[in-house]
Amino acid sequence: MVENIEGVIITPLNIIEVKGGDVMHAMKKTDAGFDDFGEAYFSKIEKNFIKAWKLHQSMTLNLVVPFGEVKFVLFDQTKFQEVILSKNNFARLTIPPGIWFGFQGLHEPSSIVLNLANLVHNEEEVVTKELNYINYKW
Amino acid sequence: MVENIEGVIITPLNIIEVKGGDVMHAMKKTDAGFDDFGEAYFSKIEKNFIKAWKLHQSMTLNLVVPFGEVKFVLFDQTKFQEVILSKNNFARLTIPPGIWFGFQGLHEPSSIVLNLANLVHNEEEVVTKELNYINYKW
Repeated sequence: MVENIEGVIITPLNIIEVKGGDVMHAMKKTDAGFDDFGEAYFSKIEKNFIKAWKLHQSMTLNLVVPFGEVKFVLFDQTKFQEVILSKNNFARLTIPPGIWFGFQGLHEPSSIVLNLANLVHNEEEVVTKELNYINYKW
Repeated sequence: MVENIEGVIITPLNIIEVKGGDVMHAMKKTDAGFDDFGEAYFSKIEKNFIKAWKLHQSMTLNLVVPFGEVKFVLFDQTKFQEVILSKNNFARLTIPPGIWFGFQGLHEPSSIVLNLANLVHNEEEVVTKELNYINYKW
C-alpha cells in the first residue's frame, strides 16, 4: 500500500532555462514548510545501491536531487510512500522527524542528493538499521 | 595580478567515504563565515561556457561544487582572484557583497554550483554586465 504519509511534503521546484546552464531552485526561507537552517550536505548514491534505513528523531530533512535520479522510500510504521526525484520530477521532499526512510540510486554511475536540514548533524538523534529491518521490496 | 580579495573565504570541506556513495559537507550554521540562510539554488554550467559578470550589492554567496569542476574569477576593481573548485579541491567559496564575479565550466558536459545565499534572490540587488565589461583573459 502506497499513500502519502502525514507531514511529508513534496514541493515542485522551478527550473529556469539559462544559456550555458540552467538555474534550479532548491529552498527559500520564505517557502512553506521551511523551518530553520542547520546544515547542508550532499549524499552521492551509486546506481542500484540502497542506503536504508534511517530515522531522525529531531531533524527535518529537505531533499533535492540536482543530478541523476533517486527513489526515496518512507515508512511511518503503517504505510510506505515512494517518491522518485530527478530533473523530470524536480521537487523538494520534506521528511519530518520520526519517519523511516531509505533511498536508491537510479542513475548511472551515480546521483546526488542535497539535504537542507534544520539542525546540524548529530549522531545521537539518528537511528540506523540494516536494510532487512523493514520488509520492503526495493 | 592574482591575490586574495578581502572578505573572500575559502573553507575546505570534508568528504566522508561511505559505501555506495560519499557524503560531502557544504555548510553548517556553526561554521565560521555563516551569516544567515536566505535561499539555496543550483546553477549548471556547460564546459567552457562563461557566466560573467555579476555583482551582488547585499547578498553574500556561499558556493560549493558537488559535481564537475568550475573556475571562479573575482574582481574587486583592483585585483583578480581565481578559484577552481571540484572534488579535488572541495571547498566552500564565500563571496561578500560588492565583488564582481564570473565562472566557467571546466567539466564535460557540465558542472553544478550550489549557492547557499544569506538572502532570498532579489533582482534589484544584482548588477549584471556583459563579459567584455571587465578585461580578463579567461
